[in-house]
Amino acid sequence: MCELLAMSANTPTDLCFSFTGLTRRGGETGPHKDGWGVAFYEGKGVRAFHEPGASANSRIAEMVQTHPIKSEVAICHIRQANVGSVCLANTHPFIRELWGRYWTFAHNGQLAGFTASPGFYEPVGDTDSEALFCDILNHLRSECDRHAPPELVAETLVRLSSGYARQGVFNLLLSNGDWLFTYCTNRMASITRRAPFRPARLKDADVTVDFEAETTPNDIVSVIVTEPLTSDEHWDIYQPGEWRMWQQGVVILKGVTGSSGGSHHDTPAQYTR
Amino acid sequence: MCELLAMSANTPTDLCFSFTGLTRRGGETGPHKDGWGVAFYEGKGVRAFHEPGASANSRIAEMVQTHPIKSEVAICHIRQANVGSVCLANTHPFIRELWGRYWTFAHNGQLAGFTASPGFYEPVGDTDSEALFCDILNHLRSECDRHAPPELVAETLVRLSSGYARQGVFNLLLSNGDWLFTYCTNRMASITRRAPFRPARLKDADVTVDFEAETTPNDIVSVIVTEPLTSDEHWDIYQPGEWRMWQQGVVILKGVTGSSGGSHHDTPAQYTR
Repeated sequence: MCELLAMSANTPTDLCFSFTGLTRRGGETGPHKDGWGVAFYEGKGVRAFHEPGASANSRIAEMVQTHPIKSEVAICHIRQANVGSVCLANTHPFIRELWGRYWTFAHNGQLAGFTASPGFYEPVGDTDSEALFCDILNHLRSECDRHAPPELVAETLVRLSSGYARQGVFNLLLSNGDWLFTYCTNRMASITRRAPFRPARLKDADVTVDFEAETTPNDIVSVIVTEPLTSDEHWDIYQPGEWRMWQQGVVILKGVTGSSGGSHHDTPAQYTR
Repeated sequence: MCELLAMSANTPTDLCFSFTGLTRRGGETGPHKDGWGVAFYEGKGVRAFHEPGASANSRIAEMVQTHPIKSEVAICHIRQANVGSVCLANTHPFIRELWGRYWTFAHNGQLAGFTASPGFYEPVGDTDSEALFCDILNHLRSECDRHAPPELVAETLVRLSSGYARQGVFNLLLSNGDWLFTYCTNRMASITRRAPFRPARLKDADVTVDFEAETTPNDIVSVIVTEPLTSDEHWDIYQPGEWRMWQQGVVILKGVTGSSGGSHHDTPAQYTR
């Protein structure tokens, strides 16, 4: 299994606090020591850090914890390998270009025996996760228009996700830098922080942050994770089959597919603006 | 203009010494302060660091200088912007997946008014360099077989490169992690270090390395740059129109196209194993 972390914000925001909590689980407070990676969007560009080892004692992860990289969308993953060997090519998040934008993907779960339909995008490594990512992009490319609004892209993503969820565990983070799509089979929670900001304490490290001192009153910053990171805040737990599309720190579209995949008729789910 | 650095080695080798010299030119001993990036292959995986600012005073660049990341192929670039704004999306090296491998590209020069033929791969930023990279990949995808040996891939790359060279300055580094292709319009030099190893001194920083202490007698490590990095070694200067394909630290194929592009009949150039 693995753990996921994402951020959606309405102003460039660093991920130092949450990243510090998550990376402790990579070999210290958790067993996810087979790799870690994080991707930060900056405009249409993306910068990523990947390492095929434990994040808890990584010098590069330490640099990312203490060197604020500001972003409106970020995706992070720590890995405990099940499918695929421990190597750099199997380290999430995976990144591809589609329609002149970088798409970034991280996955928690396992789809035993998943086979992607042949297509343009091909996995480099041998994880089911990267094969899923390529499958999603191949479907989008052939079924969606490049100028499709988020509603239509979400419709395709929901349909694909509920199909994957019928085959196994599929907790998903996917972004094109503009929005962030999240899908939950069984483990996902979010928190939206906005004024009045309060302090918060990490579960996995003796670290407290006073968000009031770090933000302006207009900031809206949401964090999405497989497992809540703080011990003194209320996290909003996703239902099984729930998906949310985030932009600028808020949910712009959401819905629920049938539990554990449900029937095909549950999608497209009802949208809530 | 920009500066380029690449490495090809027969054993995983760090780039700390050369990278330290090059990054000084990013705002200290040289004017290339508009971004820097480096990509290290590790098996089929690649890890990259990109920043849209000066490398000379970057904390991330400092970490890369002092934290040995071992690789058999690496590509590095520091940028002085001409075409395209200063932003992360315009920062080399650019990376795309083709045939289940990551391809990495960095370019020095300028092709005013270059327009890529439409194709699958699209630039994310607005540099001529990234448009060139996408053009190369689109041609390879449609004209080469995925199982083509390096000789045939080189033939396509030489034909494309000499075409681009007729339109401007085109000094190129391109790799798929297996081999490294280099093409010189006007600025490129290489050095191959093997036993008996000697010390070397950087031009751009008061740094000396004793390669004897860092290597084994079987190591072969080649470094390719737009401008020699050391003051006390002999660098092999490329001729205009010269290309070399490197693998495991040695040249496996090379040739010369007509000066500044020459006629189309110069390609495919004569190969030398």
